[in-house]
Amino acid sequence: MRIWIFLLTLLAIFHATAQQNTEDSIIVKSLYSEALCSFESYNNLEYLCTKIGGRICGSPEAAAAVEFTYQIMLQMPFDTVYLQQTKVASWKRGEQEQGRIISPVYGQRDIHVCAMGGSVGTGFPGISSQVIEVRDIESLLKINPKDIKGKIVFFNAPFNQEYYYTFRAYGENASSRVHGASEAAPLGAVAVIVRSLTHSTDTFTHTGIMRYKDPEIAIPSFAISTTDADILSAWLKQDDQIMLYLESHCYQIDDVPSYNVIGEIKGSVFPESIITVGGHLDAWDNGQGAHDDGGGCMQSIEVARLFFAIGYHPQHTVRIVMFMDEEMNQRGAKTYASDTICIGEQHYFALESDRGVFTPTGFSIDGDSLFYSKVESWIEMLKPYGIWQLEKGYSGVDIHPLKTRQAQLAALITDSQRYFDYQHADSDTFDKVNRREMQLGSATMAAFVYFIDKYGIK
Amino acid sequence: MRIWIFLLTLLAIFHATAQQNTEDSIIVKSLYSEALCSFESYNNLEYLCTKIGGRICGSPEAAAAVEFTYQIMLQMPFDTVYLQQTKVASWKRGEQEQGRIISPVYGQRDIHVCAMGGSVGTGFPGISSQVIEVRDIESLLKINPKDIKGKIVFFNAPFNQEYYYTFRAYGENASSRVHGASEAAPLGAVAVIVRSLTHSTDTFTHTGIMRYKDPEIAIPSFAISTTDADILSAWLKQDDQIMLYLESHCYQIDDVPSYNVIGEIKGSVFPESIITVGGHLDAWDNGQGAHDDGGGCMQSIEVARLFFAIGYHPQHTVRIVMFMDEEMNQRGAKTYASDTICIGEQHYFALESDRGVFTPTGFSIDGDSLFYSKVESWIEMLKPYGIWQLEKGYSGVDIHPLKTRQAQLAALITDSQRYFDYQHADSDTFDKVNRREMQLGSATMAAFVYFIDKYGIK
Repeated sequence: MRIWIFLLTLLAIFHATAQQNTEDSIIVKSLYSEALCSFESYNNLEYLCTKIGGRICGSPEAAAAVEFTYQIMLQMPFDTVYLQQTKVASWKRGEQEQGRIISPVYGQRDIHVCAMGGSVGTGFPGISSQVIEVRDIESLLKINPKDIKGKIVFFNAPFNQEYYYTFRAYGENASSRVHGASEAAPLGAVAVIVRSLTHSTDTFTHTGIMRYKDPEIAIPSFAISTTDADILSAWLKQDDQIMLYLESHCYQIDDVPSYNVIGEIKGSVFPESIITVGGHLDAWDNGQGAHDDGGGCMQSIEVARLFFAIGYHPQHTVRIVMFMDEEMNQRGAKTYASDTICIGEQHYFALESDRGVFTPTGFSIDGDSLFYSKVESWIEMLKPYGIWQLEKGYSGVDIHPLKTRQAQLAALITDSQRYFDYQHADSDTFDKVNRREMQLGSATMAAFVYFIDKYGIK
Repeated sequence: MRIWIFLLTLLAIFHATAQQNTEDSIIVKSLYSEALCSFESYNNLEYLCTKIGGRICGSPEAAAAVEFTYQIMLQMPFDTVYLQQTKVASWKRGEQEQGRIISPVYGQRDIHVCAMGGSVGTGFPGISSQVIEVRDIESLLKINPKDIKGKIVFFNAPFNQEYYYTFRAYGENASSRVHGASEAAPLGAVAVIVRSLTHSTDTFTHTGIMRYKDPEIAIPSFAISTTDADILSAWLKQDDQIMLYLESHCYQIDDVPSYNVIGEIKGSVFPESIITVGGHLDAWDNGQGAHDDGGGCMQSIEVARLFFAIGYHPQHTVRIVMFMDEEMNQRGAKTYASDTICIGEQHYFALESDRGVFTPTGFSIDGDSLFYSKVESWIEMLKPYGIWQLEKGYSGVDIHPLKTRQAQLAALITDSQRYFDYQHADSDTFDKVNRREMQLGSATMAAFVYFIDKYGIK
């Protein structure tokens, strides 16, 4: 008899699993179908990009983006929609950024430059000085300071094109942008220009945050387009008398109030347990913040819309968060994590989309190994939608503070080949977003949240 | 003792396999690194697209493309580079295509239309007629012919957005384009317009081949942009007196000579056994044929360049083929397959890239199951480069005739989300190609050919 009981139990388990799988695959299919057939999220992104545009924190555009996404969520059947106040330090690019090479051999050439985010300006009449080219901070520190004194330091490390995953090249080169000015200033440099962080050879300038270690010796920092960097480098090889003229008028503004925008679906079984899904609403002032990260915001709102549309009510509380101030000081992220400490919230899981809204390929998991194995068991069901990649790695800047709150974290991984063509540049515009690629991402995020909500993280 | 021998043998096998794997992964890495760091292929595509442009077979542009790729290959260390003559039937779009809705209710509206490839023209002064909207051929055939007589038939089936793989939607809708005119003409229709085959809603018109079953009752066939199709359809619902004005001046030209362009690396061990790698050189006249299929051609040449660059000499003969006339009558493909019958060649394997030069994801295999299993065992080594997908399915139009020659066939699968934004439209231009995405495809093709060359197909 026993073997029969055993076999029947096996059969029952098999039957239950099969039924579960069928149910899951129907729900997953519904999420993808709804996402791929809808234009709502894409149209909202178009508005955010083309009517509001670049929106560095503390700007009127950032305020407009807060209002716009708040209104979108208010019109949806969330249980609660609210603004979470946070202070942000604002920075303005100012007018009239310019750069010019003045070469006794080659003549003059206007170059494409832009101030790095957070940089001081040159003020009038700008800076004119000789240039010293270095690869990176490491090579800068090997140079005799007397050869640097009074000069503009030109950090010119091209991206390593070899890596499949493009963020790896970015990771290797970003320190010149962030810390180049701080390292060059004590050596007597008067300004720094940094080769734009991109794989492309073009005339776009890629801004991004820079930091001053010692604000007392703050020197201006600029991005130079890769095409101009190549020309400057070539000219420097033939002409050691080259002068560079740089002008910028950026300035800091004292803390101003801003907001994270939050929409919440109260969990039906575990309302105290919170799943956070988000992107960041602020974006650099030069482009439209389409891929970085307006798209990620719209995908996050879309996760909720997809649940509403197919009629799925989560067991856990699902909170959609538009984080403010990712690009400069992550004040929104810090506020979100610390505010919730105060009110004793229990963070279960958080997912961020901030790698460009290209075709999704998988997830980067920052969690424990039990969680990783659990996710592994779900991936097969997402393969029909191109999801195959699972990595242990970083999640996202905005949700990272939740790690201290014992939340399991994840990032949506997307096809990264085009990302650095646009990141932090004028070219990060709505027309670079393909609706279907973006919506595959939205559905993938929703499906992932569905699995977590249904099967838990352990 | 025996157990020792067994263990030592196992160890030796393990050691050999590990060494093999290491060797393979070094070669695969070299191919990808070389591809991702090089701009040559991309620059050549730029020339083909922007200096030569659209190149329907039999046109001066197609002749220029033959010469251009012939010269590229002549400058490379191929063992042989030659032109294989084929006749092609040429077709000209002619000047002044236009369309206009004339509505008693809404007024007049110029619409975006273009002739389908192979269509007869309306001639002067064009066709003015009432319109009857149908979804597809199936619904057309259910209508009473007296309601069709004298009218323009408007095929208006939107793409099914739900499918992950976009070619599936194309496959479902393409028959209206190809056979719509042939089915409508015997029912008394005077012309047909077909909703452009795309997922996008925009003003681009997507041409493509159409066929006449009975050339005696050939009526003109047009593509209409999706935006205009939506407007026409909406207006027709409110206004049954709408007239449509259509004008085109296309015409056929008798067979003219053209060529496949071929570069050959003689195999070091099996010179009689041929591996064909190709794309098609012809492209519709309206765009630049960037994704369809200038990119596939450049990737194919790049496969050889990669082998030369890393110093890999294949054991089998590797033949790079720019096929002529894929878009209209596949004369180049037929000539290639039949010519080689004459000279008794042994076709081993053929690979085509003709699905847009987007990020590659895998291969579609049209071969026997032994071959499929073999390919399966290689995929793991390509995963670090995003290759995960293996399907039993169609290969490519140009290599398909080699199936009768017992060749194993395969197609490069690429991310399909953006493909139908561009296919056969003005928008298929060089600026839509990302160098890294294209080069990942080139390297993936080269790695695949390397595995086939080294480990065989069985």
